[in-house]
Amino acid sequence: MKIFIYAHLDEPAKAHLRESLSGHEAYWADKHAPTPADVKAFSTSEICFGNVPAEWLQAETKLRWLQLESVGFEYYQKCQALVTQKNILITNLRGMFAKPAAESAVGGLLALLRGIDELAMGQNSRRWISLEVRPRMGLLHGRKVLILGMGSIGQKVGAMLKAFECEVSYYARTNPEATFRSPEQLDARLHLFSVVVNCLPNTPETENFFHRDRLRRLSREAIFVNVGRGSTVDEPALVELLQAGKIGGAVLDVFKQEPLPPSHPLWSCPRTIILQHTGGGYADELLDKARFFVVNLDFYQQGQPVQNRINLTLGY
Amino acid sequence: MKIFIYAHLDEPAKAHLRESLSGHEAYWADKHAPTPADVKAFSTSEICFGNVPAEWLQAETKLRWLQLESVGFEYYQKCQALVTQKNILITNLRGMFAKPAAESAVGGLLALLRGIDELAMGQNSRRWISLEVRPRMGLLHGRKVLILGMGSIGQKVGAMLKAFECEVSYYARTNPEATFRSPEQLDARLHLFSVVVNCLPNTPETENFFHRDRLRRLSREAIFVNVGRGSTVDEPALVELLQAGKIGGAVLDVFKQEPLPPSHPLWSCPRTIILQHTGGGYADELLDKARFFVVNLDFYQQGQPVQNRINLTLGY
Repeated sequence: MKIFIYAHLDEPAKAHLRESLSGHEAYWADKHAPTPADVKAFSTSEICFGNVPAEWLQAETKLRWLQLESVGFEYYQKCQALVTQKNILITNLRGMFAKPAAESAVGGLLALLRGIDELAMGQNSRRWISLEVRPRMGLLHGRKVLILGMGSIGQKVGAMLKAFECEVSYYARTNPEATFRSPEQLDARLHLFSVVVNCLPNTPETENFFHRDRLRRLSREAIFVNVGRGSTVDEPALVELLQAGKIGGAVLDVFKQEPLPPSHPLWSCPRTIILQHTGGGYADELLDKARFFVVNLDFYQQGQPVQNRINLTLGY
Repeated sequence: MKIFIYAHLDEPAKAHLRESLSGHEAYWADKHAPTPADVKAFSTSEICFGNVPAEWLQAETKLRWLQLESVGFEYYQKCQALVTQKNILITNLRGMFAKPAAESAVGGLLALLRGIDELAMGQNSRRWISLEVRPRMGLLHGRKVLILGMGSIGQKVGAMLKAFECEVSYYARTNPEATFRSPEQLDARLHLFSVVVNCLPNTPETENFFHRDRLRRLSREAIFVNVGRGSTVDEPALVELLQAGKIGGAVLDVFKQEPLPPSHPLWSCPRTIILQHTGGGYADELLDKARFFVVNLDFYQQGQPVQNRINLTLGY
């Protein structure tokens, strides 16, 4: 089978692929500067591993299966009709980043509450600032937490926070086990939570979900965590609340524009931790992506259902 | 009853005491610059709240009960014989700092693993360093964890880490539920753990417990956390291991000398987070200390057993 490789990989990941794909015709494209030869090779490949430009899917192609190197796939929704018409199978990496992203969410929360970001600055200048930091410290224990989104990240965060004796509620449109199923139910209770963890994906329905009026319902002690997508939040409104001390703080992994521009006011908002979209990161992540593809390739070859199939029309 | 107040308190804590002690003869000493009048008032008081100089206990005194404003009481062990002879009751704040200290331990671990200390530095200079940080990131999930000490902090840390799917073992001399009960058992297995959380108190037996040879048994990936006491660790040996990259990192709340001197090499060891003895801190901690004393005073007055009595002879 002709396999086109267009993923961001490190040496261990490449070595794993080279070994595992030895029986296949693998074409390694240069992701940073694709050539006309690369585009031509793609058009004759049956399988692709990596997030190719959407235009390539729109051109003449023999592609049957696209394994994305990401969880997000919103970028491909613009070629939804064509992909459906051509019957191209698309799979993502759903679930792979649940543990790291949930650890970053809880780690960011604890860092903010336990003053660890301030202490890192003190450490850098060898200053003992213990007495300055202590009066600003708080506890995660016993907080009322709302998690938006009951996907793998949201559920992981919830499981962890229960060990901190937090009372965990969920907002999710389609999961019958969610505490809140509609924005109206949510808005009526949002002020009751002292931690709000946004794990919403980027879909047309979640665009600007945390608009100004909704953000204003947050309580004065509420810490707003975003490990979902930047598109779901009205950032200028969030900046105003943080600067005015009208909410307890923020832990933000994702932004409307990434990298966050140097001039962006979020960088210096009080009681705000900027995680720089590292939430899914861990040392072996590229190797694990390659491993996932190889396992899925095995299912594909054996005619078994591949894992993590996505439906661009339904948006999940 | 004549009550001598010698605790570090903020306004809310003082207000709570003033209100609660209105029926008593309360004497407020100046903790920062005690006068001869203060010393005299102490000698005629029945009850004291706060960590007075040990000499005061050795002089002529009417003291029946000393409520410490700390968990640690090693400072008073030098007047053990006298306190026993005079039959002075001593109580501490055992358990009050379990939640904050355990949160700082887990928060420090997550900060180290999820790169949050490095990201705080990037944030301060508005630099997006996501790609630099990601390859150094790791996961807490699934790690083999050893916790030393099964007091309130150790048990809390263990309960939290189980929610991160960690496999938790304990070292404790006297608790039959501990995995390891002797230093020999510990030394035979220490290399198997990728997180080691030291919650040992300062006692004659724990002095330099983590000596050079024991520290050298730690595995290359092991993260060493100390939320116990600085006296239990050979710091120069720890510095060597960290500087040589022979262990995975360290999260240190306590030190042999505090504040840690500006010239101390621990400030700049790689993969090391210095928590500056903030582990027990939270905004209401002084108020909670005052509340604890007031509740205990009520027991005392009613002739019921006071909470958290300590035995200087046994050391707990």
